[in-house]
Amino acid sequence: MFLDTTKAVLCDIGGVLYVGNTPIDGAIEAITKIKEHYPIRFITNTTQKTGSQVVEKLQELGFDITEDEVITALDMTKLFLQNHQSNAEFLLTDNVMDFFDSLKEFPTHYVVVGDAQHNFSYENLNSAFRALLKGSQLVAVANNRYFKDNDNELSMDAGCFVSALEYASGQKAELIGKPSKEFYHLAAASLGVTPSECVMIGDDIEGDVLGAQEAGIVGVLVKTGKFVDADLQKGIAPDLILESIAHL
Amino acid sequence: MFLDTTKAVLCDIGGVLYVGNTPIDGAIEAITKIKEHYPIRFITNTTQKTGSQVVEKLQELGFDITEDEVITALDMTKLFLQNHQSNAEFLLTDNVMDFFDSLKEFPTHYVVVGDAQHNFSYENLNSAFRALLKGSQLVAVANNRYFKDNDNELSMDAGCFVSALEYASGQKAELIGKPSKEFYHLAAASLGVTPSECVMIGDDIEGDVLGAQEAGIVGVLVKTGKFVDADLQKGIAPDLILESIAHL
Repeated sequence: MFLDTTKAVLCDIGGVLYVGNTPIDGAIEAITKIKEHYPIRFITNTTQKTGSQVVEKLQELGFDITEDEVITALDMTKLFLQNHQSNAEFLLTDNVMDFFDSLKEFPTHYVVVGDAQHNFSYENLNSAFRALLKGSQLVAVANNRYFKDNDNELSMDAGCFVSALEYASGQKAELIGKPSKEFYHLAAASLGVTPSECVMIGDDIEGDVLGAQEAGIVGVLVKTGKFVDADLQKGIAPDLILESIAHL
Repeated sequence: MFLDTTKAVLCDIGGVLYVGNTPIDGAIEAITKIKEHYPIRFITNTTQKTGSQVVEKLQELGFDITEDEVITALDMTKLFLQNHQSNAEFLLTDNVMDFFDSLKEFPTHYVVVGDAQHNFSYENLNSAFRALLKGSQLVAVANNRYFKDNDNELSMDAGCFVSALEYASGQKAELIGKPSKEFYHLAAASLGVTPSECVMIGDDIEGDVLGAQEAGIVGVLVKTGKFVDADLQKGIAPDLILESIAHL
């Protein structure tokens, strides 16, 4: 069993720990239990919250999780832009915009697309398209297809609008979040282990499970959050399938 | 020269006859001249206007064009839905919505995407996505990447949002407008000629020129409208390239 070689755990957040504003049954206790045995990083493609906002919500819901245990695709995007000494035109929700304020001194060479929700207006998308035509490069904070929304139905996620801008511009976006290998490998490195010593737990059979596997990490699927039965017909074989994280 | 075997002409409208609200230099005279020698159909993926609205604009600009000479992707979409006895959830601009009123008696089995412009809100797109999840089929009135907007810059066109919904839903849209072969073949048939006896004139090297060629029609590119020099690096060989339709 792969758990013999496991030295650390990576865990998705939305859909695995909670849906909407409700913790998954038993998830709070499961995380406490896992943390008694393994170091852990919570890694998320959520772009509607910064890392500190994510932790605040998790703590409010009752989870014993600290800010240094969370890595978000937004954190990685800021690092990417800092490394390239560039600002960007951002398609994001208003509440995370000031997270990138420190980049304002740099010139703008990128268009950054996250889950902008109602900021995905035609006007904003077309402005991003025109920036791409003028030479900006397209960066996808995440490429998720959909997420489980507060009303318990699926809603369109960042990847759909990345796809729209790719189609319009002919560019292929550079992906920062899951399932990019760089993201998984950095998360493993932050725990001081190799990818093969990690287990990744997620509700997205493509981004979490297949993405982790392709990065050399064990991929565990939980049947909560965005999971639907049809996911099991996609030709992807999770290393383990659980009803929820409480069953680990 | 292919003009020896040409018996009829197909011609795109936006970008070939006019840009914004200005006729291309010499286009009005060129159309009059062509019509002295060949029967003609003006075929357009424009979804922001119905056929009669298109003709009205062309006549206002000074073109001698009648409604029976114009075939729009919206006309073909209505025919498609009528044949399937179905209504649809429409992503279109407000001014063409009542064009589909006669379908209201039918149940809704389709999501129809045209160039909805500011109706491409997150809310409307997400509603379409959810309809697709519940079993509706995705229909693209057009799949154009961009068009030359009134401010003389390129703007995102219907195809970008078709791409977003395809990515979200995993469905492949059924295309009604150019470059679908059915559209080209029906346009040729309406002129009583075979595809190989037709010449297609357009400013879109993919949708107009390559699309026509793949339907067995001679493809002529004009360097007006959305044309940019980079189009000639796409590995597509137009049968003829003209500075504008006035040079035919």
